[in-house]
Amino acid sequence: MEKNHALETDMYQLTMMAANELAGKSNELSTFDLFVRRIPESRNYLLSCGLEEALNYLKNLRFTEEQISYLKSLPAFQGEQHERFFEKLRNFRFTGDVWAVKEGTPIFSNEPLLIVRAPTFEAQLVETYLLNIIGSRTMFASKASRIVDNSRFYSQAMEFGTRRSHDPEAAIACARAAYIAGFVATSNLEAGKRYGIPVSGTMAHAFVMGFASELDAFRAYSNAFPKNTVLLVDTYDIEQGIRNAITVAKEMESRGERLLGIRIDSGDLAHFSRLARNILNENGLGYVKIVISNDLDEIKITDIRSKGGIADMLGIGTMVATSNDAPHLGVVYKLSEQETKSGEMQPRIKISEGKITLPGLKQVYRFYGRDGRAYMDEICLSGIEERKSGTPLLEKVMEGGNIIVKMPTLEEIKIHAESERKKLPDTLRGLTPNKYKVELSSHLLVIQTQLIESAKAAIRNGQGHNATAKKIK
Amino acid sequence: MEKNHALETDMYQLTMMAANELAGKSNELSTFDLFVRRIPESRNYLLSCGLEEALNYLKNLRFTEEQISYLKSLPAFQGEQHERFFEKLRNFRFTGDVWAVKEGTPIFSNEPLLIVRAPTFEAQLVETYLLNIIGSRTMFASKASRIVDNSRFYSQAMEFGTRRSHDPEAAIACARAAYIAGFVATSNLEAGKRYGIPVSGTMAHAFVMGFASELDAFRAYSNAFPKNTVLLVDTYDIEQGIRNAITVAKEMESRGERLLGIRIDSGDLAHFSRLARNILNENGLGYVKIVISNDLDEIKITDIRSKGGIADMLGIGTMVATSNDAPHLGVVYKLSEQETKSGEMQPRIKISEGKITLPGLKQVYRFYGRDGRAYMDEICLSGIEERKSGTPLLEKVMEGGNIIVKMPTLEEIKIHAESERKKLPDTLRGLTPNKYKVELSSHLLVIQTQLIESAKAAIRNGQGHNATAKKIK
Repeated sequence: MEKNHALETDMYQLTMMAANELAGKSNELSTFDLFVRRIPESRNYLLSCGLEEALNYLKNLRFTEEQISYLKSLPAFQGEQHERFFEKLRNFRFTGDVWAVKEGTPIFSNEPLLIVRAPTFEAQLVETYLLNIIGSRTMFASKASRIVDNSRFYSQAMEFGTRRSHDPEAAIACARAAYIAGFVATSNLEAGKRYGIPVSGTMAHAFVMGFASELDAFRAYSNAFPKNTVLLVDTYDIEQGIRNAITVAKEMESRGERLLGIRIDSGDLAHFSRLARNILNENGLGYVKIVISNDLDEIKITDIRSKGGIADMLGIGTMVATSNDAPHLGVVYKLSEQETKSGEMQPRIKISEGKITLPGLKQVYRFYGRDGRAYMDEICLSGIEERKSGTPLLEKVMEGGNIIVKMPTLEEIKIHAESERKKLPDTLRGLTPNKYKVELSSHLLVIQTQLIESAKAAIRNGQGHNATAKKIK
Repeated sequence: MEKNHALETDMYQLTMMAANELAGKSNELSTFDLFVRRIPESRNYLLSCGLEEALNYLKNLRFTEEQISYLKSLPAFQGEQHERFFEKLRNFRFTGDVWAVKEGTPIFSNEPLLIVRAPTFEAQLVETYLLNIIGSRTMFASKASRIVDNSRFYSQAMEFGTRRSHDPEAAIACARAAYIAGFVATSNLEAGKRYGIPVSGTMAHAFVMGFASELDAFRAYSNAFPKNTVLLVDTYDIEQGIRNAITVAKEMESRGERLLGIRIDSGDLAHFSRLARNILNENGLGYVKIVISNDLDEIKITDIRSKGGIADMLGIGTMVATSNDAPHLGVVYKLSEQETKSGEMQPRIKISEGKITLPGLKQVYRFYGRDGRAYMDEICLSGIEERKSGTPLLEKVMEGGNIIVKMPTLEEIKIHAESERKKLPDTLRGLTPNKYKVELSSHLLVIQTQLIESAKAAIRNGQGHNATAKKIK
């Protein structure tokens, strides 16, 4: 049974719905674009994530009597004028259409990740939750992807961030997003159970401290996990810890077992990982993997690597779980079309200072060169402009409130993310800021210009009147 | 029915529990301190938060058969040696003792917010979830408190951040934390329902755009909410928007109603809020409140205020919901005591590079001057050192797994937070970085020094042996 998320939204969505209902405007169709105005400076692209969760939310959206009673108890909702509104909530279903880019697709500023076309009543309600889900999951996946991009040729990344994330559920969502972005495992057991993500764990300093000696602790752990022992070697003295691990590795060999790895979680990771590799190799333990951790991100990893550090596995915690250098995306949900009385969809625009939107129902095309690499995206008006040489990124995923595509499995999403990123220019996958070309189609520019002019004229006339544009067909 | 959170933890907690069980070490008592190593540079104090959620978690912690089956299916847990471990999980209850500072209490670096003393088996399991809950809620409350500190003399803050938070549940937790820290309302309806927090909402640009004119939109909204209308005036032209709001306010007056407020969400907020105040006052609408929003935080608020901006209410979103300038706290959970075979609790220490911990069961005393203001905290050994002139911050809240204190209501927590912050030096409540004095007691320093020496000697002897200290009584 899905959890009921109906009230996980902003109060003003409900008051606007009620006001629209009273004004007889709640059945008109509206189209909203969900997009990121400007991707953070420390990202060259975003990795789209969260669609499955978003669609499940839309599909299962209902109001319980208890929730309606709560709303009716609020001071704002006193008055008989809202009776019809509450009746509508009682029978609420999301009946709209949704277009979206696949999870795991790289996207850029101003490109819709998701488009909702539904009766205004419904389209309004879902804004907050959709922004939260798509925004946060895409934030996690984008940070994880950047970490993978900058470590993929020499290390594998594991997600260890649950303790520092903003909620236990945020942690689970981050584990899924990171896995999609190329991480190989998570430490979060609930994420493992819920999504089938491989789980991984080593040991903590407290475990080592719980024994009379480090060696005792290592032996106890290897007895318990003969096939899965990773020994944490930095509780007391790192070099001594490595030597104790070697002692245990040899004992394991004598029992026909193999030590899986050691972990270093403090100190000069470049120096000690190199030292560990050397000592291990000298002792014929080239198969023992080295795991490093301690507030790692793509910059620290690059630095450690440049200093000769050697790690088979990276434990990444805080920096992926909080997307520390960009802890939010400027994700917005903006009206792009509205139904007229005659039933036509009319493009709309918002021109508040510095916040001009793109009108109309849109499609994003990605163009690939002969080398198979993407070199440009073009945002076009859907249905009016077709680009046969480009690949459309948005597909219709929901119609009349029903999911109309086969949802990909997590593994399929992960593979898609991998293959789509391979098609990006290499310059986008490093640490250096680089821009990718995103153009607006000529039709879109024309209609946007018309709407801006029309809006300004209306404002000059003192009406604050809505902008309209000529129909383009 | 509480949700089951048993698997919302790191894999390694379970493997360590299993290894300890196999080594016959899982029933020994361990004491763990949960604290923040160093509070972020952009905070002068932290506001403790999350205790109620943490205690409910401990109280209700159980493993379902389904969860145990999942664990048994993992590669690491294959083997008969873990049978007794799984049997223990089947009967799992948290039976430990917990000491904690009250929610809403200001705290500083290295001061335990929470202390867990329980059989190692239990104390280990709960680390990850407790860190997540106490860490994230304290992070939210601390950011919110800083915003309130820097706006409290002229504006009230409302929490509008759901859309940008890292998960819908993080948003609800943030709404509660912000309310504790002095915010007056939230836009999150689920938080309103769950915790009884006042909810608030205005309208979005899309609502205004949905009508033929701004005036039509304003009229429709005021018809629906005669007592609760806040009009968003910046969809087209702000000054014109203010004048349209005045038209509607006058119409409302003629019906015996009053416009509650207007909101400005873009542009030069200092300029336009002042302009709005003037025009409203000139029109006899001094009672109409002004709400401003748009990525506000304590720095922007101070800036707007310094430029003569006037706002009765602040809509605070992203910056509180993501604690943008400090999106995590370095919250840790460290072993401070362990039971010996003879049943005595022995102080323990961790001396990894740059991460030395404080041994022993501790109490934090706060000292107040004649003016009622706090001037110093002292971290002492609990039971050994008493400070009659100081106020102890840690109280025992759980014994044998049962909550033994009456949990305060949300309103009581909010009042406590307000009164405790009033006792802080004013210098801690502004934007300028200022340090508060936190001392270690002489006993604590002695025992810490002994343990460091003993650990170093053991390491020199090549044993990686655990440090012990003489008993202090």
